[in-house]
Amino acid sequence: MADETTIARLAALAVELGANVQEGQIVGVTAEPGHAPLVRAIAEAAYRRGARLVDVAYFDPWVRRARIEHAPDETLGFVPSWWPERLLGLAAERSASISVAGSEAAAAVDGLDPVRAGRARFPTLDEGSRIVSERLLNWTAVPFATRTWARQVHPTLDGEAAEARLWEQLVYVCRLDAPDPIAAWRARIDETSRVAAALDALRLDALHLEGRGTDLTIGLLPTSKWLNVEFATAYGLRHVPNIPSEEVFTTPDPERADGVVRATRPLVLQGVVITDLEVRFEHGRAVEIGSSSGGEALRAHVAVDDGGSRLGEVALVDREGRVGRAATTFYNTLLDENAAGHLALGNGFAFAVDEPERGRINRSASHVDFMVGDNDVAVTGVTPDGRRVPLLRDGTWQV
Amino acid sequence: MADETTIARLAALAVELGANVQEGQIVGVTAEPGHAPLVRAIAEAAYRRGARLVDVAYFDPWVRRARIEHAPDETLGFVPSWWPERLLGLAAERSASISVAGSEAAAAVDGLDPVRAGRARFPTLDEGSRIVSERLLNWTAVPFATRTWARQVHPTLDGEAAEARLWEQLVYVCRLDAPDPIAAWRARIDETSRVAAALDALRLDALHLEGRGTDLTIGLLPTSKWLNVEFATAYGLRHVPNIPSEEVFTTPDPERADGVVRATRPLVLQGVVITDLEVRFEHGRAVEIGSSSGGEALRAHVAVDDGGSRLGEVALVDREGRVGRAATTFYNTLLDENAAGHLALGNGFAFAVDEPERGRINRSASHVDFMVGDNDVAVTGVTPDGRRVPLLRDGTWQV
Repeated sequence: MADETTIARLAALAVELGANVQEGQIVGVTAEPGHAPLVRAIAEAAYRRGARLVDVAYFDPWVRRARIEHAPDETLGFVPSWWPERLLGLAAERSASISVAGSEAAAAVDGLDPVRAGRARFPTLDEGSRIVSERLLNWTAVPFATRTWARQVHPTLDGEAAEARLWEQLVYVCRLDAPDPIAAWRARIDETSRVAAALDALRLDALHLEGRGTDLTIGLLPTSKWLNVEFATAYGLRHVPNIPSEEVFTTPDPERADGVVRATRPLVLQGVVITDLEVRFEHGRAVEIGSSSGGEALRAHVAVDDGGSRLGEVALVDREGRVGRAATTFYNTLLDENAAGHLALGNGFAFAVDEPERGRINRSASHVDFMVGDNDVAVTGVTPDGRRVPLLRDGTWQV
Repeated sequence: MADETTIARLAALAVELGANVQEGQIVGVTAEPGHAPLVRAIAEAAYRRGARLVDVAYFDPWVRRARIEHAPDETLGFVPSWWPERLLGLAAERSASISVAGSEAAAAVDGLDPVRAGRARFPTLDEGSRIVSERLLNWTAVPFATRTWARQVHPTLDGEAAEARLWEQLVYVCRLDAPDPIAAWRARIDETSRVAAALDALRLDALHLEGRGTDLTIGLLPTSKWLNVEFATAYGLRHVPNIPSEEVFTTPDPERADGVVRATRPLVLQGVVITDLEVRFEHGRAVEIGSSSGGEALRAHVAVDDGGSRLGEVALVDREGRVGRAATTFYNTLLDENAAGHLALGNGFAFAVDEPERGRINRSASHVDFMVGDNDVAVTGVTPDGRRVPLLRDGTWQV
């Protein structure tokens, strides 16, 4: 495991920069039992900032495994009333929220039926997407390396070495090696803010992604606004929702996506690893989802509603980000989505368009990111009058 | 740690005999992150019985430590709405409930201010006492030996040896060494049922406890009924609330207790160890609470309401129980209360008296057991006409 100093620095990053916990706030923490050392450091940092309560929901993916293995089919989707009540209660109290990523979920569903795994979505809650989209919580997510996750990322190393290697990488990608990690993140966020403003100034009508088996055009809405990781709640409290974060992103037109996109990294969906994912879009809808393995889980997942098969997010990442430089598949969306540009099937971001267009963005109970970017995938902007503007070439911003 | 077979047998005891989980039930599990191996085995056993959902609330006593250390004083008693909602929701759904005992709470408050610790009662909820007293859940509690707990029980052994020794003792006191542990428990429960029926037949007006510094008379209500561990919910589902359990008990008259009682074992109250506890009663009320250490925490705890200082339970245990034979202080009420007779300050049991007398039993948001029995403490029954009937002498039933 990481030393106490590393864990305390990561906790400080989560509490101070990430969630930006305020005096008197409740802090909801979502984690797994194996994350306890970080959770305890987060609690200490939050209480030192004057938190009213640190309310930890430890979810155990091995208990979920028992459910997927043994529970009657018709009960797999059941969610008890008090879980949405907790989430809505946190929102009503204007709470902070910190999620620890680095789940054992993938290991815990190894060998199980992916369709049953896809149906046992709990602790994912429908209310979660709405709360994010309405900006009701100052939230963040930070990674923590467990032995189980480390073994998945570094299968050729023994357990201890794998864990040590993954911690080294987390220290690097979270910039915990900087003299002042919070200042280092402020500087990186300034860079992505500059790119987002430059993209907004182009007032693009569409994006074209091309290369490595991908040839996809994605329509944007007239007011689709490019954002980075500098968020604010609806009541104006700033927070940084992902650590690390290297992306700029927006919410596209759910009616306009045509062509084929090939994922550049494996996707881990509630523990199921989906490899060689390829999605074909027609008029905004994912009409074919192919894969070498695990695709059934994604098909079951997105079938939850109509919006599940349409795009809610498009995100671009340059090659300067530290996650991309680590050149490792982390089997973890929080990290992998910051290595590469990505799309999300499912719920869009209301705050990424102007008020009058909010009815046009995609709506779904689901939101699944998958990586499509690569230094070999060129991204070109298309303006309303048909002009083509290079945006990313060889992983480098052209704007 | 215990081997998988021991853990699976303990889980089966909790699910089948203890909670008696029914097909389609929700199973609420309360545990700590360190109990995960047993929790996962419980989940598997419960799902195999057809449980609809196993909903685990892992409470982390080290997060509570951070609260007691750093949170503002006026926030220590705060409980968010969703915690009572969960408990009431479990009750409304007629759920099963399994608690894992063997808490690191005591270790986690070591060196902290006991008054602040006493005020940070969460996750203890006021609604909990009512739900037990109204018999809304089929619940049970079972022990699990963590390294931290084992070190407290066996401080002269090193960590691994202490854990192994505590597991040996848990196997013994939970009768997991029997060829069929469930059958072994059925036989022991038949014995305590016989004693309870014999005590009921005496129609006692009071009990007199005498010896080892104790001289206390406790009044009983006219319909105070003696019970053992064979419980049923209000809707008729049988369950065994404590494993192990060796006691017979009832709810006394909260207006009649006079004299002095000296605890025969240390009491662990939300992590604070209270030693050499001595309580003096006048007219049913605890008017003096003395101790060598930790008494402030109990005084703060019982001050929650008027009933906090009156008796809600009196329990008797003979020397045949396996916990008493283990001759160890476990610093854990689930075990220690089954080694010895005990009293509880706080909430009484409505189901231990007839309907018309339910208004007379003690009511409180608190319920704290403390051990007062010993083979050297004689227990005598007093009938309404003043006849004295020996009940326990040298730890042996006289009835």
